[in-house]
Amino acid sequence: MEPNMSNFQSHCVEISMEVHKVVTPPPKSTFEKLKNRLKETFFPDDPLRQFKGQPLKKKWILGAQYVFPILRWGPDYSLKLFKSDLVSGLTIASLAIPQGISYAKLANLPPIVGLYSSFVPPLVYAVLGSSRDLAVGPVSIASLILGSMLRQEVSPTKDPILFLQLAFSSTFFAGLFQASLGMLRLGFIIDFLSKATLIGFMAGAAIIVSLQQLKSLLVVMANYIDGFLLPSLPPFDETHIFGEPELCKSTKKPKLFWVSAGAPLVSVILSTLVVFAFKAQHHGISVIGKLQEGLNPPSWNMLQFSGSYLGLVIKTGIVTGIISLTEGIAVGRTFAALKNYQVDGNKEMIAIGLMNMVGSSTSCYVTTGAFSRSAVNHNAGAKTAVSNIVMAVTVMVTLLFLMPLFQYTPNVVLGAIIVTAVVGLIDIPAAYQIWKIDKFDFIVMLCAFLGVIFISVQDGLALAVGLSIFKILLQVTRPKMVTLGNIPGSHIYRNLDHYKEAVTIPGFLILSVEAPINFANTTYLNEKVMRWMEEYEAENEEKTKQASLHFVILDLSAVSAIDTSGVAFLKDLKKTMDKRDLELVLVNPISEVMEKLQRADEAGEFFQPDFLYLTVGEAVASLTATMKARSSQLLS
Amino acid sequence: MEPNMSNFQSHCVEISMEVHKVVTPPPKSTFEKLKNRLKETFFPDDPLRQFKGQPLKKKWILGAQYVFPILRWGPDYSLKLFKSDLVSGLTIASLAIPQGISYAKLANLPPIVGLYSSFVPPLVYAVLGSSRDLAVGPVSIASLILGSMLRQEVSPTKDPILFLQLAFSSTFFAGLFQASLGMLRLGFIIDFLSKATLIGFMAGAAIIVSLQQLKSLLVVMANYIDGFLLPSLPPFDETHIFGEPELCKSTKKPKLFWVSAGAPLVSVILSTLVVFAFKAQHHGISVIGKLQEGLNPPSWNMLQFSGSYLGLVIKTGIVTGIISLTEGIAVGRTFAALKNYQVDGNKEMIAIGLMNMVGSSTSCYVTTGAFSRSAVNHNAGAKTAVSNIVMAVTVMVTLLFLMPLFQYTPNVVLGAIIVTAVVGLIDIPAAYQIWKIDKFDFIVMLCAFLGVIFISVQDGLALAVGLSIFKILLQVTRPKMVTLGNIPGSHIYRNLDHYKEAVTIPGFLILSVEAPINFANTTYLNEKVMRWMEEYEAENEEKTKQASLHFVILDLSAVSAIDTSGVAFLKDLKKTMDKRDLELVLVNPISEVMEKLQRADEAGEFFQPDFLYLTVGEAVASLTATMKARSSQLLS
Repeated sequence: MEPNMSNFQSHCVEISMEVHKVVTPPPKSTFEKLKNRLKETFFPDDPLRQFKGQPLKKKWILGAQYVFPILRWGPDYSLKLFKSDLVSGLTIASLAIPQGISYAKLANLPPIVGLYSSFVPPLVYAVLGSSRDLAVGPVSIASLILGSMLRQEVSPTKDPILFLQLAFSSTFFAGLFQASLGMLRLGFIIDFLSKATLIGFMAGAAIIVSLQQLKSLLVVMANYIDGFLLPSLPPFDETHIFGEPELCKSTKKPKLFWVSAGAPLVSVILSTLVVFAFKAQHHGISVIGKLQEGLNPPSWNMLQFSGSYLGLVIKTGIVTGIISLTEGIAVGRTFAALKNYQVDGNKEMIAIGLMNMVGSSTSCYVTTGAFSRSAVNHNAGAKTAVSNIVMAVTVMVTLLFLMPLFQYTPNVVLGAIIVTAVVGLIDIPAAYQIWKIDKFDFIVMLCAFLGVIFISVQDGLALAVGLSIFKILLQVTRPKMVTLGNIPGSHIYRNLDHYKEAVTIPGFLILSVEAPINFANTTYLNEKVMRWMEEYEAENEEKTKQASLHFVILDLSAVSAIDTSGVAFLKDLKKTMDKRDLELVLVNPISEVMEKLQRADEAGEFFQPDFLYLTVGEAVASLTATMKARSSQLLS
Repeated sequence: MEPNMSNFQSHCVEISMEVHKVVTPPPKSTFEKLKNRLKETFFPDDPLRQFKGQPLKKKWILGAQYVFPILRWGPDYSLKLFKSDLVSGLTIASLAIPQGISYAKLANLPPIVGLYSSFVPPLVYAVLGSSRDLAVGPVSIASLILGSMLRQEVSPTKDPILFLQLAFSSTFFAGLFQASLGMLRLGFIIDFLSKATLIGFMAGAAIIVSLQQLKSLLVVMANYIDGFLLPSLPPFDETHIFGEPELCKSTKKPKLFWVSAGAPLVSVILSTLVVFAFKAQHHGISVIGKLQEGLNPPSWNMLQFSGSYLGLVIKTGIVTGIISLTEGIAVGRTFAALKNYQVDGNKEMIAIGLMNMVGSSTSCYVTTGAFSRSAVNHNAGAKTAVSNIVMAVTVMVTLLFLMPLFQYTPNVVLGAIIVTAVVGLIDIPAAYQIWKIDKFDFIVMLCAFLGVIFISVQDGLALAVGLSIFKILLQVTRPKMVTLGNIPGSHIYRNLDHYKEAVTIPGFLILSVEAPINFANTTYLNEKVMRWMEEYEAENEEKTKQASLHFVILDLSAVSAIDTSGVAFLKDLKKTMDKRDLELVLVNPISEVMEKLQRADEAGEFFQPDFLYLTVGEAVASLTATMKARSSQLLS
């Protein structure tokens, strides 16, 4: 694919072009640069921009609205909106009550704590949160993690009071951690839980939970078959319950929506009635038992800020905090994108964090915005956070008056509710999509999945996150560097491996570096440049001696940053080239790279005229012309 | 700086251009891609390329030469080369003997271990190593680390035998770790010790060592002044010793070279004579004392592979291993670059690792190629690894016959030798250079420096490495994304902030992403694109309604990789744009990005004709033409 020299030259004459200068970027002080960097790191969303140029009073109002989003939509709230919110609020309440009880059991906590947790946190969120669709309450994953991490050191059956104390304390630390992430504007930390990690993690957790629940279900079935204890009882509702459509997919099946949304409550009511009617609790069917009526008792006196379990509690708090935060933020963003409004990540973190801190002192455990219930909320037509208030009030009524009704609810139905909710977390199509697009992401997903199942919840997660970070580091350590060729009939230069029609230019080695140049990759880049030069010369030796290597062009367009090692690499490379009688040419360095090169180049040997070009095309054209001029001088 | 529309259009007509297609990259199987990726990760230097196409016998010879580089230069070895090597070997021996004794004391080991370590390892390296200038032996930094890490758990004075056992075992694990890095081709791990980290670390270590030694020096001085014990003794040689030129700088001062290279030995001889003559050892001057004659006793029976200290020994081995490896490889590369030959990093690691493993079973502690002695070796004219053999033989002779001579060598001289060697590690000009070029690197350096001094050797190092990695992650999480404008009179588009003459094109928002798009930054990128669009529209509202936003061009030239989250981000962005009646256009995706987009795009909605362009210039020209055609159709 290599054209001969004369061909290329005539082509150059055809499209003659002006040479543009690479200019020095406008000067900025270190302070200005630091300010910009900090702003981009911590305030990329520029949260204060709406305050700019407003009168003082307006600023106060905006400030209050910023802290309490309820003040933004509250004044315009109408009866019409309330009708929608009432329906959706009642709908999610019908889900929240059975799920709350079930998830509390998943966390090895008394069932009533699940109801407490569906009362206070939604009220707090309604005031502070900025999502309109988030349905707040306990969620399966966080419940599982909380329960399994605490159980490693304390038995929930032998020492239930201590276990409860640790659960509330963990909730407090989860909230503190979440709120701190938001306040310190470190929200980007949750970005490190990639989609692949989460899909694998949730599927693994779902399988653990399902196996746990199936085990107790099988015990019931075994009892039932084995002893013929209940010959008159119809074969229960398991199949019906397992057969109900997954909640998560309810967004896609609006026709079956009301069925699926109502199923858990209907199951609970029916099974409770059956147990009550047949007095099945005396025949080996375990039931919830007596629940205390009344609202959340205070629990701030149960929080533990010292003692031998402090480490466990903080660790559990951080892990459940980050996982539940990820779910809450992701749900919020998903529905905000659907309805085209903005959710401020850092503000949401503060809201969810405060909600958990308040919750921990009112007998609630970790809560967040739940995937499944938020989808139901959205489909049931929720317009504002009032649907959370409606749900909370419904739960309150339940807590005050309806607790005796749950006395006969069989535990097995709760298990079925849990399983139904969690199997929806296993997302096979998404896993297939990941396999198709990116194999490494698939490995990360698999690690999270297998790690959660075979090692432990927190280690599986840590493994997947570690692997994701390792991938990023590997990309930096082994950056892409490609050889460019000319697309015939243009001044465009592109990757020779990708564009098969591209041709090499005799005498030129054109390389493009596609990563920041830093300490982690200078050795590699150096070796690679050397190897390419050797290969070029080896190839040339086979052919004629005529067109040997004269210029090495380094296209730095894609070098987004450079550090001291990177600068040293470029300086050393220039020295090596000089020794070999080759010319090194840099193309289109961005401002940061340009500045650092200049600062490192006191002697001025580095920035000679023929050293910097704005495009590869211009560099080749100009250098070819110089070369021709030189050789004709030599000849004449 | 915004030209009006008509101006730009006329300019477009002036430079009309052909539109080039973005082609699908040639298909490659997953296996092929995996193979390539693995090759670039582990075999970037393609170590087997010289074997290609050779006959079998030649392959065997090449293979043997690959494993034992001595076979490559051995057959051509001449008397002339030997003369050079003899001189340089004797010179470094004159350094190695006093330094060996001193560094062993720094590591809290018996002085003779330092001599043992200057005998066996150089011989092993001479056979296996590929550097011609490396002078092998104990070094100050590794000695310091070994001593201080082991001393945290075992006292060298109370339990000297155990301490020695642990030192040999640590050496074994250091060697094992080094050789494994080389065998597994994980040599890039040492790249994570950036130049900034090393400069800070070495300066911190130098200060610790100097303070330690100065303390004992001051004790001697205090004794001397306080008790008038040695009124007849001249005020010793401290000032002379401290005044001797730093060894590290000897490369720059060839005139004083022989003086500086010989100074340690001369100091030792002179001070020993003085002590002997005045019987100063009886007057409060501590001396080395009796040393056992004879060669290295075997020590493989002292290695500990189990027991309560195993963890300590492995940790110490890894830390000293990686630090000494970094020094050895860096020294090797530096002198290879000076003399224009190649040093294979992974092979060097195996050589250094085996050398330490052999050493650990022959009473040697951690050794590597020393900065200062290699410089002396180079300057004294060393040509091959034979200079190491000469040095080893000289040390052997010393061990066999000259040990009684060192009996009266005062410890204080050894301290002075250590201090002289380590103050050369404090590199103020390099620190200033780092401050000038990259402030963040300077912080990393400072952390290493202060961490080593105020926390501990290993924590200071871990802190600096952690910070360097954090910087990389931060760059990925908050990637550069800039708005581009047209450089007047060309089809070139560059950063508007850098090129002040660049102008925006009405109706277009042109963004360039300069980092891989992945899970860690999609949220940020999304927020940023949205904000820019809002700003664009806000600005336009102030002006006329005429030229509102039509096209968002995303220049992906610098996006070197993408993952599933990144693909999802682009898909979502396209959906959002469609909703807002804007057109999203991608420019110049590299082959990996292109492929993944295609695989994610089953419906084909994504790859419509007007969606992909090869350059920003062509995209703007073509889209402007389409827009004009459309509006003229509407008008007619």
